[in-house]
Amino acid sequence: MNNFKCSQERLEDKIVTFSRFGDTGNGGITRLTLTEPDILARAEFKKRMVALGANIATDDMGNIYATIEGTEKLPAIATGSHCDSVVQGGNYDGILGVLTAMEVAETIVTEKIPHRHPITVMIWTNEEGARFDPAMMSSGVITGKFDKSKMLASKDKEGITFEEALDASGYKGEEKNRMTPLKYKALLELHIEQGPVLEASNIDIGVLEGVVGMINYEFELKGQAGHAGTVPQRMRKDALYAASKALQYIHEELDKLDEKLVYTTGRIICSPNVHTIIPDNVKFTLDARHQEPKVLEEVIKIIKEMPEEFASCKVSYKELWSRKTVKFDSKLVDLVESNAKILGYSNMRMYSGPGHDAQFLADMLPTTMIFVPSIGGHSHCEIEKTDISHCVKGANLLLQTIIDIDKM
Amino acid sequence: MNNFKCSQERLEDKIVTFSRFGDTGNGGITRLTLTEPDILARAEFKKRMVALGANIATDDMGNIYATIEGTEKLPAIATGSHCDSVVQGGNYDGILGVLTAMEVAETIVTEKIPHRHPITVMIWTNEEGARFDPAMMSSGVITGKFDKSKMLASKDKEGITFEEALDASGYKGEEKNRMTPLKYKALLELHIEQGPVLEASNIDIGVLEGVVGMINYEFELKGQAGHAGTVPQRMRKDALYAASKALQYIHEELDKLDEKLVYTTGRIICSPNVHTIIPDNVKFTLDARHQEPKVLEEVIKIIKEMPEEFASCKVSYKELWSRKTVKFDSKLVDLVESNAKILGYSNMRMYSGPGHDAQFLADMLPTTMIFVPSIGGHSHCEIEKTDISHCVKGANLLLQTIIDIDKM
Repeated sequence: MNNFKCSQERLEDKIVTFSRFGDTGNGGITRLTLTEPDILARAEFKKRMVALGANIATDDMGNIYATIEGTEKLPAIATGSHCDSVVQGGNYDGILGVLTAMEVAETIVTEKIPHRHPITVMIWTNEEGARFDPAMMSSGVITGKFDKSKMLASKDKEGITFEEALDASGYKGEEKNRMTPLKYKALLELHIEQGPVLEASNIDIGVLEGVVGMINYEFELKGQAGHAGTVPQRMRKDALYAASKALQYIHEELDKLDEKLVYTTGRIICSPNVHTIIPDNVKFTLDARHQEPKVLEEVIKIIKEMPEEFASCKVSYKELWSRKTVKFDSKLVDLVESNAKILGYSNMRMYSGPGHDAQFLADMLPTTMIFVPSIGGHSHCEIEKTDISHCVKGANLLLQTIIDIDKM
Repeated sequence: MNNFKCSQERLEDKIVTFSRFGDTGNGGITRLTLTEPDILARAEFKKRMVALGANIATDDMGNIYATIEGTEKLPAIATGSHCDSVVQGGNYDGILGVLTAMEVAETIVTEKIPHRHPITVMIWTNEEGARFDPAMMSSGVITGKFDKSKMLASKDKEGITFEEALDASGYKGEEKNRMTPLKYKALLELHIEQGPVLEASNIDIGVLEGVVGMINYEFELKGQAGHAGTVPQRMRKDALYAASKALQYIHEELDKLDEKLVYTTGRIICSPNVHTIIPDNVKFTLDARHQEPKVLEEVIKIIKEMPEEFASCKVSYKELWSRKTVKFDSKLVDLVESNAKILGYSNMRMYSGPGHDAQFLADMLPTTMIFVPSIGGHSHCEIEKTDISHCVKGANLLLQTIIDIDKM
């Protein structure tokens, strides 16, 4: 255990400074990938990291690597996150992982903390997918999850491709600069929880074990349209009434499964959706997430064994997409947990529900994540906030963990 | 009882001829108010009625009155309906009431059936409201239900006002030509049922007693948005799940009321309606119709006494609009019924669920309606159809009833 601590004052300055890049004037930001606010944030990052003595490299997807050399020729320890946001997002999602990484680097440099390995502070490009679909685009490309040519062709609402935006940004670098298992020893990503669990449990730190697997299904109920005034109730096939029964059936059955299962019926499309016409077609989605594949298998079993009809309307379903559970490196998870204990920070092990760049890298090199609490569980909105004391605790835990990895 | 009967051959010719005005090529028509297909249908109507010796008049809303004089100076007996349709509608809704009225007039003229009263065959303008909102616009104006200047200002999707379309059509006439109680003795409207009841009961004729009263409410459930992956189930306020419970509650309670009650939850709006976000706001509508005001009062009582919360989400409601039950002239209703029996047509008394021009006129002069069956209950779609035998029976019943009213 060292006695080095990050600076609250410096971290607060970073949060305030970066909150200006894309400021909506309502407490939040809109900082879409490679738009002017994003370019300004990247420039500020570069300027500050160069001032700390870092070498700046960018890869062919615009991911930025700011590296402070170590005393030995060894693979680097990387930490960072993304600096793009959703439309009218907050000042913590993604960027806090960049700012705490910068603060850790600044502490190491200013306190002259000896380290054998290079330390790389990172920005991932287009994590949110809010300008260019899909999310986690650039970590996906460098880990082989996504086809690069398709990603370059992804267009924003104005028809500008990611490739055009990247070329114009000045942040297009070389493929040889990509993160690889040979050049990097480990990756740590600090992120806000984006949910209410840590706050509700009055806990400082989420020790991430992985990212939960998920399945996404769409259900369709087929009824018979008719005039609201002419068809007797007993002769109706009302697809919305049927959908409400199917939706409740699913909720009731899933509620019998493990309490860590989270599931959401978030989207409903009713046709023709006119107040004087009996609905003839209703579709709704089910998103279900759990860290254990066998629980998701039980969810699928419930779907497959559901009744064929609700309220005289046939029900059908299809899988829209799914992803497997990602488990983080158990040694790193243990190290984060023991460091949190040593630092006196209350903590709990947990899985991430949302996806993060780190989950793609986890297949490639030892990786883990640290969560800090979100006030009210709010995220992807302007009131998104994490108390500064939790930001500092997260930074200190990140610092200590990097120092420990450096010794391994 | 006379021995005069309408001609199936002539009526079929009328149906085929008018089906060309707005033909979609798929068995249906799109004949929006005062568009070219509507103007062509009106011209054909005029041409045929003039050939029968009728005088043509139009009022200031473009309603057409084609009058065959009687032997005495008496108020006219009117019959007709509308010739506009919805987008991709059928060849029976509205127009069949015009064509059977024309066929009745043709039978009276060609068979030289003596009649003391003038007989007026009518077309009402913009009944569907599919081009210019609201429905039943012109009958509404001449009966004082709607403000004329507001109706003239009603715009279609292209921004053309009803007034502009009326001016350009050549069918704008004088206010003094409007239907009034002094000038008209009675109004009969034949219409397709637009529902499945007559067909399912194997009955030829619906003897209309009135148009059911209706209420239309919107319910709103307020929840709490959140990320699909981060909020434990027990902490959620899912507005869509709550709405499905509220909707089922309403169905279950209303099903305990009179079996003639028809109600529809036809429109649902879910916000933000994204598959990975817990819905925070859901609205849905309830349309309920019954001939007895006290049954609708029971519906309102159920709404007012419903639980304040479903699944931890507050529910609120508001009335969007309502209309009172319209009762048709009891002597005319009895006359239609007794004539149907004399003619040997199976028949049942019923109320109309949908609105019709006749309901507005019912406040002004003795009025009633005749329904003929809709195959499969289909209406407002291209497959809308009424068997020709039912069309002829409807026309014969209309003829006999007019002959009887003439003697009163």
